[in-house]
Amino acid sequence: MTQDSPGALCAQALLAPASIALVGASADPAKNTARPLRFMRKHRYAGRLYPINPARDSVLGEPAWPSLQALPEPIEHAFIMVPGAQVESLLEPCARAGARVVTIYSDGFAETDEAGRARQDALVRRARELGLRVLGPNSIGCANLHSGAILSVNAAFEAEDLIPGELSLVSQSGSMMGSLLSRAAARGFGFARSVSVGNEADISVGEVVDALVDDAETRVILLFLETLRDAPTLARALQRARAAGKPVIAYKLGQSAQGDALASTHTGALAGNDAAVDAFLRAHGVMRVRTLEALFELAPLARRYHASRRIRTQAPRVAVITTTGGGAASVVDNLGLRGLDAVAPPPAFIAAMAERGLKLRETPIIDLTLAATSAQYRALLDALLRADWCDAVLSVAGSSAQFHPQLVVAPLEAADKPVDKPLAVFLAPDAPESLARLQAAGIAAFRTPEACADALAALLGDPGRAPADARPWAWPASLPRSGMLTEHQASQVFAALGVPVARAALLDPDALQHALRYPVVAKISSPDIAHKTEIGAVRVNLADADALQAAVAQIRANVARHAPGARCDGILVQEFRRGLAEFIVGYRDDPLAGPTVLLGAGGIHAELAPDIALRLAPIDEAGAWDMIRAVRHTRLVRGFRGLPEGDCAALARALVAVSQLAACTDARVAEAEINPLFVCADGVVAVDGLLRLAS
Amino acid sequence: MTQDSPGALCAQALLAPASIALVGASADPAKNTARPLRFMRKHRYAGRLYPINPARDSVLGEPAWPSLQALPEPIEHAFIMVPGAQVESLLEPCARAGARVVTIYSDGFAETDEAGRARQDALVRRARELGLRVLGPNSIGCANLHSGAILSVNAAFEAEDLIPGELSLVSQSGSMMGSLLSRAAARGFGFARSVSVGNEADISVGEVVDALVDDAETRVILLFLETLRDAPTLARALQRARAAGKPVIAYKLGQSAQGDALASTHTGALAGNDAAVDAFLRAHGVMRVRTLEALFELAPLARRYHASRRIRTQAPRVAVITTTGGGAASVVDNLGLRGLDAVAPPPAFIAAMAERGLKLRETPIIDLTLAATSAQYRALLDALLRADWCDAVLSVAGSSAQFHPQLVVAPLEAADKPVDKPLAVFLAPDAPESLARLQAAGIAAFRTPEACADALAALLGDPGRAPADARPWAWPASLPRSGMLTEHQASQVFAALGVPVARAALLDPDALQHALRYPVVAKISSPDIAHKTEIGAVRVNLADADALQAAVAQIRANVARHAPGARCDGILVQEFRRGLAEFIVGYRDDPLAGPTVLLGAGGIHAELAPDIALRLAPIDEAGAWDMIRAVRHTRLVRGFRGLPEGDCAALARALVAVSQLAACTDARVAEAEINPLFVCADGVVAVDGLLRLAS
Repeated sequence: MTQDSPGALCAQALLAPASIALVGASADPAKNTARPLRFMRKHRYAGRLYPINPARDSVLGEPAWPSLQALPEPIEHAFIMVPGAQVESLLEPCARAGARVVTIYSDGFAETDEAGRARQDALVRRARELGLRVLGPNSIGCANLHSGAILSVNAAFEAEDLIPGELSLVSQSGSMMGSLLSRAAARGFGFARSVSVGNEADISVGEVVDALVDDAETRVILLFLETLRDAPTLARALQRARAAGKPVIAYKLGQSAQGDALASTHTGALAGNDAAVDAFLRAHGVMRVRTLEALFELAPLARRYHASRRIRTQAPRVAVITTTGGGAASVVDNLGLRGLDAVAPPPAFIAAMAERGLKLRETPIIDLTLAATSAQYRALLDALLRADWCDAVLSVAGSSAQFHPQLVVAPLEAADKPVDKPLAVFLAPDAPESLARLQAAGIAAFRTPEACADALAALLGDPGRAPADARPWAWPASLPRSGMLTEHQASQVFAALGVPVARAALLDPDALQHALRYPVVAKISSPDIAHKTEIGAVRVNLADADALQAAVAQIRANVARHAPGARCDGILVQEFRRGLAEFIVGYRDDPLAGPTVLLGAGGIHAELAPDIALRLAPIDEAGAWDMIRAVRHTRLVRGFRGLPEGDCAALARALVAVSQLAACTDARVAEAEINPLFVCADGVVAVDGLLRLAS
Repeated sequence: MTQDSPGALCAQALLAPASIALVGASADPAKNTARPLRFMRKHRYAGRLYPINPARDSVLGEPAWPSLQALPEPIEHAFIMVPGAQVESLLEPCARAGARVVTIYSDGFAETDEAGRARQDALVRRARELGLRVLGPNSIGCANLHSGAILSVNAAFEAEDLIPGELSLVSQSGSMMGSLLSRAAARGFGFARSVSVGNEADISVGEVVDALVDDAETRVILLFLETLRDAPTLARALQRARAAGKPVIAYKLGQSAQGDALASTHTGALAGNDAAVDAFLRAHGVMRVRTLEALFELAPLARRYHASRRIRTQAPRVAVITTTGGGAASVVDNLGLRGLDAVAPPPAFIAAMAERGLKLRETPIIDLTLAATSAQYRALLDALLRADWCDAVLSVAGSSAQFHPQLVVAPLEAADKPVDKPLAVFLAPDAPESLARLQAAGIAAFRTPEACADALAALLGDPGRAPADARPWAWPASLPRSGMLTEHQASQVFAALGVPVARAALLDPDALQHALRYPVVAKISSPDIAHKTEIGAVRVNLADADALQAAVAQIRANVARHAPGARCDGILVQEFRRGLAEFIVGYRDDPLAGPTVLLGAGGIHAELAPDIALRLAPIDEAGAWDMIRAVRHTRLVRGFRGLPEGDCAALARALVAVSQLAACTDARVAEAEINPLFVCADGVVAVDGLLRLAS
């Protein structure tokens, strides 16, 4: 992105400003609004700094300026800490003072109520008129830990010493930004930038990530997410991060339905849809962790081994070495919960080690107490780091980590560590010194077995596929371009995309002639009746014309009784088809994540235990096969228990076809569903479906 | 248990010995075997201590004794640290020296190979002859942190100061004992006793727990388990702990199949069956945690609120107050994953708080930044701790926990905390001082959102039911008492217990007369053919005598071809029955946990996604209803989506009946299964089953 285009974000002004105004800087050291000046002095900010306070000549012993207008030189970034109602009036003075970015700590905007949202909208409109970019409002601020430019009231910066480093954190939660910084700092993790996006009224997470991709001091990007507000911008930024080889790790709330629902109540954002956001993060190569501390604990692994991530069709294999069987088992147990295999050394490896005098057993935890000498241990470690039968090596240290850190750290440090074989360490006892030394050596070390397994799963698990290319297509001229289609119309769309659809004819109920093969199904055709079966407007397995005639009479009577006002354009008669197993293929233009495609188990069992795979649309066939493997129910047509095999290639093609709903050039599909799609021994067939266009 | 009965464990000798021999105490301070003496001097053991070393007059500056025979007075407890092959020969001298308990650090026993197991068996036999009790072998030792009696080489006792306290830890992993002690100590948790049971050749976890129930300095019992070696003893001890109101918390490896499998490879124990052990722990009131640190972090909650645990039919409700929305959300998200509801304050509560000037919103996270004054906060906290709409209160603290511990701790400490409303605290930032102060105040504080949610789930979740009373019954005289029964014989057992079974007759294949109602099913009757359907030995839905005749001919041909050597005692003809949904009802005398009863979904979908509930047998009807609610598939007969309701009361009775297989007085059932059991609108019916007796 060219930074000089009008309205473009000036990354330097945001992340490394050379001159700053602190608007509303308090002279009372106990107040939050006194903090930024104190923080910047404490952490030796070397740029120009202008506290602005109309009531005082000085604050905290420094000269204060009465207004932005009074400043002697242009500023790059203004940090605004005045009551919310006064913020809008300050934008023009900020712009006149030369600011490119304004960070607004003030609250009382969209996070409160409708009036607050209106205030926020007005604020952003005014900023756009002035060519100003806004971080926040309701942002706890942003900080550069290298330069000391700490435009933040975040208490975490009270610390006497900050650790400049190569992690940058972008957070939708202001308070968690401080919590994460303090936790990471206590473990010796250094940071480059921290940015609290607040309400994301203007500058979104995506734009910050985009700026961090170009930031030389940032090597790993961490995201704390509650929702997703501007998916296209974040998608572009993540694509650039991937191209630049800069790993992105995310902790996102919403793993449970309860957590997901909080996104809307807590942040005022749109109702969450974690599955769609998860698909978004996966498609764009983000490593999502499920435990809070793994967000930073994973960073050293991500930093060094990010390029080794790959799509696997088998569970990732981890070789585990330890001096504490119980401690190693606690990680291995959690690896199992995350779908990773602890793998036993194969006989050839055992034989090779035996030649060096090291007797191993063919068990998934390699007991190092058997390695009598440090040379043997070193040989074992080197061999594991080069073995082709494992994808990563996990070392679990016992009491020596607590009492003899050097014994644990030195061999790991000395080992020749190839960049394609991740090495992670879990320390079973409380061992802060070993943790710190490993951290200093750039070796990923974990404090809990849960975070350790979580991080390995995020690194070694599915790295995702970027959305496939769109194949633009035109909406059939004969069909409506808004609202709900009838099943018959929806079928025409699916057929146009290449999905096999059961042969059907839309008939006048008083003239049921057709050329279909019996048995047939008869259904009412109406855009107004979504649940046809429930009102008796579907009859299946009709053997002949008489049966059809009788069924249609019943259907008409049922519709007249239960849906008297519904618009009906006839009776849809369809050849009666069955298959080996039934699936749902869905499509949704998700309000947060954009177009998504879904494969789900069909039938009532699936309603009891969700069994779905969701991906950003469009997908290609490789992506479709990922989805097929991810849905348990597909095993019913993949040889499970000797059952006949179904045509999964045809299922993959159908998924690809439906995903291209995203590529329609002249209509916008809001949602669509084929339910059921039968998978047969030879092909698939859609027998019912719906499609709703965006209005 | 009377401690004076022959062979009974002398709890004082184990947990609080007044005189100790250290057999094999090294004079080389670098050796593990020098540690116990050093530890006991460092931690001021005031009893009599006799290092025994035949090669030296003194060790570590103290007089050493050449042999057990040379001791001037009887000892209570001997700690043996000599090579494994020499251990057995020391038992008699130990007994002569007065020892009641011998703890064996030496390894090379059952944890190695068959020869080691034989050595161990011989050791135990000799100890029994001598009336000695053995802890270990391969035990890292046991310790009394109050008296300083540290018969242990565990490096964790290198610490300069131990914190005597009221937790006692029993561990099947020696190395994890030290890891857990060091982690807990770093958090200020004090311990009473720690016991590493090693190979549990003699003294098992159960006997140690039994002793701890009577130990006045132990208030909470923590278990680190890899397997279960003596279920009846542990069951009795846990029943005593429950009666004494002494909570027991367990972390058990084996949450994943991979972790479960380790139990056998790593410890030499029987293959794990985590589901059965989990049922065992649940039945005996043990709180099982899933995250490692929750094992001790849960202790303050367990200590104070254990008596408030109850069986609920609704999800437990947690009121959440916070100054950090993101931090609270990270716990609430994890609560959701564990089946706990974060609950919004109801309108009446909001109105009551409004009267005190506190404006709350009806959202599941109560934002305390709205509580302007500390009096308001105090009023809110007191009201929540007495509210009838929540089962627990969770307070999540933000940056003040890091920078102003007193602000966080004081109000929580001051609050009047009823013992029936658990109060837990999560600290979002790194805040060791707040953690320590809360710990000192006896308030449960958690370091990670995952452990916090885990602990609340363990405390508030299903507290389990003790196994129901056995209703002794006699094995039918006409049936075999060992081996596999035929389906017809198994059906007679199920019918005898009161399970409705489809009407059937065992017929001579050449004389198919019967009084059953058509349609019928015909199957081969053989104890040798477990999978009748697979070889074509079952024919269903036979409409009349001709169809039956033809089917039987086919069955005979198929059996002759596919199972030519099978013993067959006829053709089982059964009325053809169906139901609203099918289930598996199983029974297994689990090698680790003892008799268990299982309810599982039937049909192939269940094989794709396990959906079972397992409990110790026998159960009563309340326990059966717990199981029915725990199996998703039962929703198909409980009004899901308007489906017809099935007779769940009959299902509950059938589960109770099958669970009484445990109570047979004169035969031992190894395993049994009804598959399927159909649940109908009126009643249930078993249509196939198997039963195997222990040989």
